[in-house]
Formats: sequence, C-alpha cells, structure tokens
Amino acid sequence: METTCSAKDLAALLSSSSSSNSTSSLAAATFLCSQFSSISNKLSDTTYAVDNTYLLFSAYLVFAMQLGFAMLCAGSVRAKNTMNIMLTNVLDAAAGAISYYLFGFAFAFGTPSNGFIGRHHSFFALSSYPERPGADFSFFLYQWAFAIAAAGITSGSIAERTQFVAYLIYSSFLTGFVYPTVSHWFWSTDGWASASRSDNNLLFGSGAIDFAGSGVVHMVGGIAGLWGALIEGPRIGRFDRLGRSVALRGHSASLVVLGTFLLWFGWYGFNPGSFLTILKGYEKSRPYYGQWSAVGRTAVTTTLAGCTSALTTLFSKRLLAGHWNVIDVCNGLLGGFAAITSGCAVVEPWAAIVCGFVASWVLIGFNLLAKKLKYDDPLEAAQLHGGCGAWGLIFTGLFATKRYVNEVYSGDSRPYGLLMGGGGKLLAAQFVQIVVIVGWVSVTMGPLFYGLHKMNLLRISAEDEMAGMDMTRHGGFAYAYNDEDEVSVKPWGKVGHTSQSSTPTPPLTA
Amino acid sequence: METTCSAKDLAALLSSSSSSNSTSSLAAATFLCSQFSSISNKLSDTTYAVDNTYLLFSAYLVFAMQLGFAMLCAGSVRAKNTMNIMLTNVLDAAAGAISYYLFGFAFAFGTPSNGFIGRHHSFFALSSYPERPGADFSFFLYQWAFAIAAAGITSGSIAERTQFVAYLIYSSFLTGFVYPTVSHWFWSTDGWASASRSDNNLLFGSGAIDFAGSGVVHMVGGIAGLWGALIEGPRIGRFDRLGRSVALRGHSASLVVLGTFLLWFGWYGFNPGSFLTILKGYEKSRPYYGQWSAVGRTAVTTTLAGCTSALTTLFSKRLLAGHWNVIDVCNGLLGGFAAITSGCAVVEPWAAIVCGFVASWVLIGFNLLAKKLKYDDPLEAAQLHGGCGAWGLIFTGLFATKRYVNEVYSGDSRPYGLLMGGGGKLLAAQFVQIVVIVGWVSVTMGPLFYGLHKMNLLRISAEDEMAGMDMTRHGGFAYAYNDEDEVSVKPWGKVGHTSQSSTPTPPLTA
Amino acid sequence: METTCSAKDLAALLSSSSSSNSTSSLAAATFLCSQFSSISNKLSDTTYAVDNTYLLFSAYLVFAMQLGFAMLCAGSVRAKNTMNIMLTNVLDAAAGAISYYLFGFAFAFGTPSNGFIGRHHSFFALSSYPERPGADFSFFLYQWAFAIAAAGITSGSIAERTQFVAYLIYSSFLTGFVYPTVSHWFWSTDGWASASRSDNNLLFGSGAIDFAGSGVVHMVGGIAGLWGALIEGPRIGRFDRLGRSVALRGHSASLVVLGTFLLWFGWYGFNPGSFLTILKGYEKSRPYYGQWSAVGRTAVTTTLAGCTSALTTLFSKRLLAGHWNVIDVCNGLLGGFAAITSGCAVVEPWAAIVCGFVASWVLIGFNLLAKKLKYDDPLEAAQLHGGCGAWGLIFTGLFATKRYVNEVYSGDSRPYGLLMGGGGKLLAAQFVQIVVIVGWVSVTMGPLFYGLHKMNLLRISAEDEMAGMDMTRHGGFAYAYNDEDEVSVKPWGKVGHTSQSSTPTPPLTA
Repeated sequence: METTCSAKDLAALLSSSSSSNSTSSLAAATFLCSQFSSISNKLSDTTYAVDNTYLLFSAYLVFAMQLGFAMLCAGSVRAKNTMNIMLTNVLDAAAGAISYYLFGFAFAFGTPSNGFIGRHHSFFALSSYPERPGADFSFFLYQWAFAIAAAGITSGSIAERTQFVAYLIYSSFLTGFVYPTVSHWFWSTDGWASASRSDNNLLFGSGAIDFAGSGVVHMVGGIAGLWGALIEGPRIGRFDRLGRSVALRGHSASLVVLGTFLLWFGWYGFNPGSFLTILKGYEKSRPYYGQWSAVGRTAVTTTLAGCTSALTTLFSKRLLAGHWNVIDVCNGLLGGFAAITSGCAVVEPWAAIVCGFVASWVLIGFNLLAKKLKYDDPLEAAQLHGGCGAWGLIFTGLFATKRYVNEVYSGDSRPYGLLMGGGGKLLAAQFVQIVVIVGWVSVTMGPLFYGLHKMNLLRISAEDEMAGMDMTRHGGFAYAYNDEDEVSVKPWGKVGHTSQSSTPTPPLTA
Repeated sequence: METTCSAKDLAALLSSSSSSNSTSSLAAATFLCSQFSSISNKLSDTTYAVDNTYLLFSAYLVFAMQLGFAMLCAGSVRAKNTMNIMLTNVLDAAAGAISYYLFGFAFAFGTPSNGFIGRHHSFFALSSYPERPGADFSFFLYQWAFAIAAAGITSGSIAERTQFVAYLIYSSFLTGFVYPTVSHWFWSTDGWASASRSDNNLLFGSGAIDFAGSGVVHMVGGIAGLWGALIEGPRIGRFDRLGRSVALRGHSASLVVLGTFLLWFGWYGFNPGSFLTILKGYEKSRPYYGQWSAVGRTAVTTTLAGCTSALTTLFSKRLLAGHWNVIDVCNGLLGGFAAITSGCAVVEPWAAIVCGFVASWVLIGFNLLAKKLKYDDPLEAAQLHGGCGAWGLIFTGLFATKRYVNEVYSGDSRPYGLLMGGGGKLLAAQFVQIVVIVGWVSVTMGPLFYGLHKMNLLRISAEDEMAGMDMTRHGGFAYAYNDEDEVSVKPWGKVGHTSQSSTPTPPLTA
Repeated sequence: METTCSAKDLAALLSSSSSSNSTSSLAAATFLCSQFSSISNKLSDTTYAVDNTYLLFSAYLVFAMQLGFAMLCAGSVRAKNTMNIMLTNVLDAAAGAISYYLFGFAFAFGTPSNGFIGRHHSFFALSSYPERPGADFSFFLYQWAFAIAAAGITSGSIAERTQFVAYLIYSSFLTGFVYPTVSHWFWSTDGWASASRSDNNLLFGSGAIDFAGSGVVHMVGGIAGLWGALIEGPRIGRFDRLGRSVALRGHSASLVVLGTFLLWFGWYGFNPGSFLTILKGYEKSRPYYGQWSAVGRTAVTTTLAGCTSALTTLFSKRLLAGHWNVIDVCNGLLGGFAAITSGCAVVEPWAAIVCGFVASWVLIGFNLLAKKLKYDDPLEAAQLHGGCGAWGLIFTGLFATKRYVNEVYSGDSRPYGLLMGGGGKLLAAQFVQIVVIVGWVSVTMGPLFYGLHKMNLLRISAEDEMAGMDMTRHGGFAYAYNDEDEVSVKPWGKVGHTSQSSTPTPPLTA
C-alpha cells in the first residue's frame, strides 16, 4: 500500500465534519475506509505470500526425502541390484507426478465430494486451479511429494527380486488410487474419518488424528510392501538350508547413512509442513504464541522421537547382537520418525520421547517376528513403516493433549488422549484407522500382487536373481572402480562378473 | 508498529473537531496519518523481509545444484578422473564467486547502462550496495549461483581429457564475461532483447521470454561445451577402429542418481525462484491469486516437464536399447528441466507435458546425431543443455498463454504463444535469441578453445589420458576400498593401478 | 484482519462528532482504535510467522551440516573405519538432542541467570515454553543444531583409533556442558562477555563479537579434538620409522566433496541464520535497507571468504606439493568458512576476501606445524576449526565496520575494528575470547581425555586398529561391491578381509 495520508487535507475534512456538512464527513470516512481497505488487502497478500513460501519450501524438503529413499534403498541392497532399485525411486517421483496430476489429486482432495473418494471435476489435471483460497499449486506440489513417498516404501519391501513390469503396475495403482483414497478419508474436509471435516460430523465426535501420516503414508506403504514380499517369498539365500536367517547385507553403509540423514532433513518438511500454513495467531493474551510455535514444537517432537528411538536401538542392539551397528541405529531413527508422524503436532516434547522409546522396541519386535516367520523385507519396510506407523496412531490416542488438539484442529472441546484424561473416543478413532488401512490396502494390493504372481509377472527367474537385475535388465553393473572393469566393453574383452554389458558384442550405445 | 491508539484521547480530539477548533482536528488528523504511516512502513519492511527470505532460500537451492553437478559429473566419468572433475565443480563455484563479485555481476546487471553490457560503477565489487530497492545482496547471491551453473555444464562436455590450466582459463572467461553479457541482453532492464526492458522498447514489441534461462544458462553452457569437445576430439577408445561407438561408462550410477536428484531439488530454486519476489497480488477480484500462485504453478510445470521427459525416455530407450536404463532416464529428466526452464512461468501445466515429451526426443535425436558425427560428450551436455535448451525457447514461443505473459511480465497486450493465438512475434524473438546465443558463444568460446588447442594447452597427453588425470595431476586415485590399495603409500609398497600416489618415494604430505 | 469499515456508518459518527455529541465521537474513535488494534495484531502475527519461518529453515540447513560432517568424515578415513565414524556423526545429533533438551539448552540460554551459566528452571526440558517472545521452539531447534556441530568437529580429530565408549562419554560431556557454557558466555543476554548483554555492562564496553561462532563452535570443537588427539597419539603408520609423515588417505574423495558441499550449503543457515530474525528495518531514510540486507550481505561475505581461501589453497598447494588437490581445496574452503563465521555480519565483502586469504595460510601453517610435532588429526580438525576459528576472532577485531556493528548489535557508539579506526577495545575482547575458550576447553576436556586414557578407555588395541573398527566393533565392513564379498555370510564361506561378519559361524541376524 502507499501512504497517501495528508494530515492537512484530512484535518480540513474532519474540522468541517459538523452536522451541517455531511459531504465532507463522508469524504473523511471514505478516505479512512479506503486506507483500511488497502491495508487489509496488503495484509491478505502478505498472508498468502508467507503461507505459500512456507508450504513450497516444505514441499521441496519432502521431495528431498525421495532422494533419501533412493540412497537408503541403494545402500541397503546388494551392488548387483543398485540400478534397479534407484530406477524405481526415480520413477516413483516421475510416474507419480503424472498420475497424481491427472487423477490422484482429484481422488484425494477434489471437493465438494463424498466421504469415500474425491471427484470434483476442477481438480482433475488441475483444470481450474487455483479457484479458491487454501488450494493453490503449492498444496498440489506438497501432496504429490507425499504421494510418491508411499510407493517408495513399498519398493523397499520387494527389492532385489521383483520384475520391473510388476513394479510399474503396482506403483501406478498405489499412487494413483489406493493412496489417494486413504488420504481422502483422513485428510480431506469431506473424508468420513477426517478430524477436520468441514461439517463437523466427526467419527466418534473426534475423527482420527493422523497429522502427517503415520497411517496414511507409512502404514499404506508398509502394508502394501508386506503383501508383495509375502507373496514373492524371500530372496534366494536369505534363509539357509536349516532355515536359519542369513544376512544379505547391503553394499554400502555410506549410502544408507546418507539416505537416512536426507530423510531426517526432509522430515522437517513432512511433519511441521503438514500445518500447511504458519501465519495464524492462537491467543490474544500471548501474542507471541501462534501456529509458528506449534510448527516449531512439531519439529522438536519429531527430532526427539527419532533420536530417542535411535539411542534405544543403539543400546538394545548392543546387548542383543554384541556390536554398535550404524545400520540398525538408522532404522531405529526412521522408526521413531514414522511413529511420531501421527501425533507430532498435538503432543508434548516429553511424550515424543516415550513415543520413540516404544517405537524402537516395536521395530525390534517385528523384526524378530519376521525372522521367525521367514519373512524377507530387504529394507525392513513393512516392520518399520507398517509397525511403527501403527504404534504412532495408538500413541496419539494415548498422549494427545487437550490444548494442542483444540488449537491445531480448531475446536474447544474435542476428545484427546486417553492418558491425558481425554477419554477413549480419540483412541477408538485411531484403532478404526489402523483396521481400515490394513483392510483397504489388503483388499486392493493383496489381489493385485497375487494376480501378478499367478501371471508370472511378479518375480524374476532364479538365474536373473543370482546374476543381479542390473546386468540382466538394466544395461550393466552400477559401479566400475577398477580398470579391468572396463575390459568387457571392448570387443576383445571377456565378460566378467563386474563387466558392464550383458552382450558379447561391443555395445553400440548413444 | 506499536498500538498507541487511545479511544478516549482520540474521541476528545474528534468531538472538538468542529469548525471552531481547527487545532484539535489537525491533531486528530496528524495522529491518524502517523498511524497510517507507521503501518505503511511496517508493511514495507514486511514485504522486503518476505521477498528476501524467498530469494535467499531460492539462491541456496540453486547453489545446491552445484553439488548436484559435481556428483552427476563424478559418477559419469571413469574412476580415474573423478578427482579432476570434482575439482572443476568446486572451482566453478569458488572462482566464479570472485570474478562475478569483481565484474561479472556489473557486466550483467549494472544499471543504468546500454543494451549490450552493464557497466554502472556501483555494481563492480558491490561498491555501493544496496543503493535502491530490488537490487539487494540476495539478488547478487542468486545471480552468482546461476552464473556458476553455466561453467559447470561446459566442464561436462570436455571431461576426462582437458588440461587443468585450460579449464581455469575458459571457466574464468565464461563466468566473468561471456555469460554475464548474455544475461544482460535477456534479463537486465537495459538488455536489448529483454522482455522486461524498463523503457518498453521491446524487440518485436515482445522481447525474448527466457524466464529462468533455457537459453541464457543452458544453451550458453552447452554451446561452449560443444566447441570445446569438437576441438578436442573424442576420448581415446570412445570410437573403436571400425568407427563404432563404444560406451565409456561412468564409474558410479549411485553418484549419477544422487546428482540428478540434487539438480531436481535445486531446480525448485532455479525456476520458481526466478520470480525474485513472491509478495505481489495480481487480481483484486481473486484476492487469493497472486505471484505466490504463479510461483507454485512454475514449480508444477517444472515438475511435470521433467517427469514426462523421464518417462518418455524410459520407454523409448527400452524399445531402442532393450533395457530399462536409469542413467538415460536421469538424462531425460534433466533434458525436460532444461527445456521447461524458459517457459515455466507462462505456460499451463498441460503444456509442460508437451514440452517434456518433445524434449526427450530432442535429446535422443541429438545423441544419435552425435554418435553419427563421432562427437564425444561424456555428460551429453551439449545435446542436453544446448539441444533441449533451444527446444525450450521455441516451446515458449508456441505455448505461452496470454494471461500468464501479461501477469508475469506486467503488461496488458503483450504478444504470446503462436499456438495459443498470440501471433508470431514472441516466437520470432525466441528464434533471435537462439541464433544470437549460438553466434555469440561461438565467436567467443570457439576461438578461445582453438587458441588453447594451438598452444597445446587444451588436451592432455595420451599417456596421461590412459593413466587417468587423478594419478598424474591431482595427487592420487579417488578411492581406496581395500587394504592393498594402501600399500603404495608405505615406503616398501609397489605402485599398483589403484595406488594412491604417483611418486615412487613415500609421499610426505601434510 | 477483516475489513469492516463502512464509510456510511463512520461518516454518520464523524458528522455527529460535534461537541454536543460525545457518545458518537467515542464510538467513532473506538471504531478507529479497534481497527488499528486489529491491524497491529495482524502485523505482529505476521512478524512472528516470517521470523519463525526464517529461523526454522535456517535450522534445517544447519542440521544438514551434520550430514555434511558425516560424509566428509566418512570419506576422509580409511574404508575399514567408515561405519565407526558415521555412527559417531549420527549419535552427535541423536544423543545431542536428548542432552540439549534436558539441560544443555538451559545451561546456555536459561534466563534470567548469572554470567557464567544459565539455569532458569523453565528451560530445562523446555518445561514452560514458549513463555515470552524471542524464545520459541525454533530457537531451541536452531541452537541444538549448533550444539551438535561442535561434537562433530571433535570426532574428526580422534578418528580411526578411539574406543566407542570413550566417544559416548566425551561427546555427552561436550554437548551437554562444555559447549553450552561457552555459548552462554558469548551469546546469551546474561553472558559475561556477550556483545548483546541486556544490561549493557559490556566487557571493555564492547563484548566479544563472535556472530555465528568461530570461537563458540569451531574453536571449542577444535581445541577439544586437539587434546583428544594429543593424548591418544597418532594412528599406526601415520609417521614411519624415520619419523616422516605418511599420508593415510581417506577412502573416498567423492564423499569428501559431497560432505564439503553439504557443509557449504548448510553454512547459509549457520551464518546468515544467526541473525535469528529477518523482519526489522534499520533506516527510515532508506526503507529498502534493513536486516534482510544484512542477512544477504552475511551470505555474501561467507561465500567470498570460503571461495578466496579455496583458491588460495589451490595455488599454494600446487606450488608446495606439485599437484592440484581437491581434498586440500575442500579443507581450504572450510577453513575460510570457519574464519569468517565470527565477523560475517559486521564486515564489508572486500574484507571477507582478506579473511579467506589469510585463513588459507593459517591452515597451511598449522598443518606444517602439526607434521613437525607429529600431531595426527585425520580431518585436520584442530588446525582448521581451532586455527582458522581463532584467526576469525582476530579478523573481526581488525575489520568490523562502525556502521554494521552498531546496526547488528543495536548501538550507536560501540567499539569496532582496529584497522577501521574503531580502536583496540573490540580486538582486546576478541583476544580474551580466544584465551578463555582455549583455557576452558583445556581444563575440562583435557582431564577427561586423560582420565579415559589412564583407565584404558580411550584408545583401541593395535590389533583392532590394524583390522579396522568396523569389523571388530560395528558388525562388518561398510562396503560389498563384488560377489566374493558376500561369501563369508554363507555357512560355507571363508572369512576374507572384506567379509561382512567377524564371526566364523553364519550370523543369524534380524
């Protein structure tokens, strides 16, 4: 706004604003009102600019998690399958962008709509967008970055033995339909179990609180992976002839740590970013307290939960396995993050420490169970995202505080955590969410994986699995550190195990 | 601002503001005006703070692209030249900072100036800075991060065979003079072909629209690399005795994927960040719609173009080469980004999909052509940044929409895309940009590379090329994974192919 | 705020605001004041939102430095100790979060408090937080990210030979007590040597200016590392039988460059972020000039210092060692950053170039000295962070400008740099800071390391050192690039030097 206030002119208007001169009093009033109006417009612009800046940079951080997944997955598989797994991570983002743009976003957030699936026409392919406040391109970008995370989780469970075509099929189905539906239920203003339903007709008077997606993202990805890995069975050599578990270690701990830290970095977009806006005051009496504080607190609870889980894992694995294992610590850390993701915005920092401590043991427990059941999940994805994600939903039902629930979800007498004195309604809603997600993902992804299996489209051949998918399907080995690695690409070279081409003739590539 | 409004005091002033008391009406008016003035000041401060925050964090993201380039380049060369290429990437940023600070920035944006080159004294070494709105330190930082990207592109084309001294020379010349000049023409308010000339005397009534630099950055880097690589000739072994193309594969696909994702991450600073500001309303009738929406839309078009190009490349290379190739997919993705960079802010999301689809085929086509012409570019940089960059400029001339062009470039009847009904003026300006960039870079960088070549300063010796530059010029091999790799650093060790020192005596280093 | 200004209603009030009608003049005034009040509230909310957004994203960048440290350290050690060093980096962040939450933050910033150590109850475990402006969760997160950096520096000095238990002990002590105390002295509003003491009772009328922590973070970490490395002695083989220095090169230059660039990226959170807020105007006469400019300038000085140091190192090492060394360039770059960190906000850009030039020689000099004294520091951490950090404090005492010191530290006649005509008071305070930090860290960390040494808890056995800590303590080797690397995990496999398990029987892991 411009300052156009002339005290002299205004004084003249005011001084003649006696009852005998209504013209000049109208002029004075018009001037004052136009000032207030332009201030109001500018403040509104400012709010949109600040909130969009906040959401866009949060979206970029969430996108960085895809790089984290790529590095974590690459490091966790054997060198011979590195190209394969990284390609799936690139494609999660790329194919996910197209399918989420065309219909996934509309399924999830198209509104007005019913409680089961979004379908308002203006959201398909962003056809008339933005058409109202609160649903701008930044929101689409943010939700896309979430959608691709779910598929990334699943690809970890079925790594090192899945046909690439099967990957393309299940990944599109998950990102384009299964996940958007779940996010509609719990996050859209029309969702039947959403805690922010616009009509206030809430499940158990509460709705399920899954602030940033312990259930919507992590459980969905983890349960999908569970079915895939169960139907495919373990990798060759994962359990020996006596049925004992044999570690098939990943090929690079450096990539695992790199990926873990990148995921941690990106989680600051995932959890605090889920507020979507930051410019909102909460209390007149404490003007310095508002959504910006809640955002910061969310970053703190996230940090504390992950770190507690990492430390708990460090010491418990030292006792159980006899060494200090950085890979296990990384998984423990991620388990703590997956768990706190549901309640991060509505619990006290001290409760986040409880959350992380339990998450570590949940992961250890599910890993023991997996070993017992001869379930092979190269990234521990089902255990970590599925198991710790479910614990996170329960945790929220136990520890959500009255004040934070009412601030974050804009109410004044909402149910909150059972152990905080808020009764059992929220906890009940959380259990409903767990059951519904397990059910929905099972009835959609289970048959899909089973169908692919029956059509021999799911698992690669034993020969290809032994040779590695990079050589047989992806044009070569991912690494060439030594000179002799190069001989095979020359016409006279022999094809060794680290050779770079699967063809005996010199490859003529572009 | 502080709230110092006392209703009682103000009422007293207003009530005595009858015609008989002009003193108190002046006091009332003065009070009201001073309130408006302090509100206006605070709103102005807020705008600067928001816009600078937005631009600074965008600059940090663009800087992260330099890390992306370093990893992409490192992974794309053979292990024996890793140290060399990474050093060039670090130096692009470091030497570029000094030269851009001293004169490059003044050449590019020093204003008032002529249409050909900036030269206002206050911009050299930031000597009196900031001296007006819109040209703050954040703008310098942002433009520096752009400048170093061009040199990074070029170093990819001439990788694995160029003397380090030649690199130091061309890189300074490119970052300090060639690139700043081009950015002056198309981006400064004085540039002869700029779409945002302050005097509105626009080329073809339009100016070329190269929003974030498909031409200014990518073509400049790519064409410079083309001349370097042409004059140097292909790497030893790149084409066999029968003239057939032999892939000299990079040593680490993991680094390629890491670099690609980091470039993707940084592109969110490159393209949306090119708005420079975010706090600006566009329409009174739709108060929620403003520059923040255009920024978000730009992030979306960028994403869709890259992703479409990646998917197109995936399937077309599957058909052409018989495997699913993650390296090719990464290059396709980057080609889509390079293409959309010109028009990202002024096209609809669906058009970005067209842009990416064609970009993939442009890259495939130029790569086939390069193979036919025995042109060797280890990073495909000339094809990707030069070829897809040029396509991006044409694309903008075809698909830019009326509304977005007028919003983003502040006009009301500017020419826009030919296929959108906007006539051929914009397209003509885009062709002029392509011709002018090819011409300017050719007449500056061509002779430079040729002169270095004639003075035997350009290409390393065949022996050094076979041994690798790291051993011969950069103090050792980049990796040492095995114990035996270390023997050579001990006095009694033999010097093997992965030894870490080129000297037979024990290296005495700090 | 909402626009509720009706010109008609207001005019009626104003027009009847003659002396005869004080009711309606009170109504008009009340209306006007409530408008101003709601504008003021909204502006206040906006300021909190902008400043918290700025600080949170800065904190995320500083956190990314921990990833940078992890990669830099990993690449700089031999492959056999990669898991060990990366685990320490993960734990710096994880254990640091818990200890800084429980008491470290209160020791550092708990206020009101004495000059020596913070202790206000409301800061322990963030027990009543936020309870006033300027101390929100974002501030805690930011300071935590700083705290963990110090421990990261130290772990580099004592890499490849330190027992993991010793690491756990010194790291907790450093992050939980030694570092918070120092940050209290120089950064809290109660600190005895702080330049921003709230009571204005400043050391030498100035206080020490260590804007972002050349002393508080870098010297503390470096001096702690110095004592650890001195007491442990050099790694086996670091100096040969004749006492000559033998390079024990790190195993991956790619990781070193990756880590360096990530640290550079994060430094934009570290230095400019240390303003903590960005929405603050400085001058009425130049409304476009405010804290946002100072923030941008800080990013520029940081960039220039690091880049100058990198270039100086490039050429000087070329002369001294005969090759162009990317590892040395990376260390030079980081040395420049460590030095400018103290004065980045209060010096001119040209002075930053001086700072970086000298920093390069300081690092080269201390490295020569270290070699002479047979001091072994695998990351050059004591030389780089300790040495260049100390130079940075002196540099600030010489080059801080009058205007910037008064703007940034809110004064009008503060002492400034000696060479800028500001007298010797600031320089004296800087020297006091150097002496005090060296002394405090020595009397706390020296005895701790010595005690651990005496109890045989500090250094690993020679056998373990030769075999590498990953095999003996951390469950296996970090890498497995070749098929034969896997044999040892199968029941019939032999255990080779790159085998993945230290146990002869097949490991049964989860």
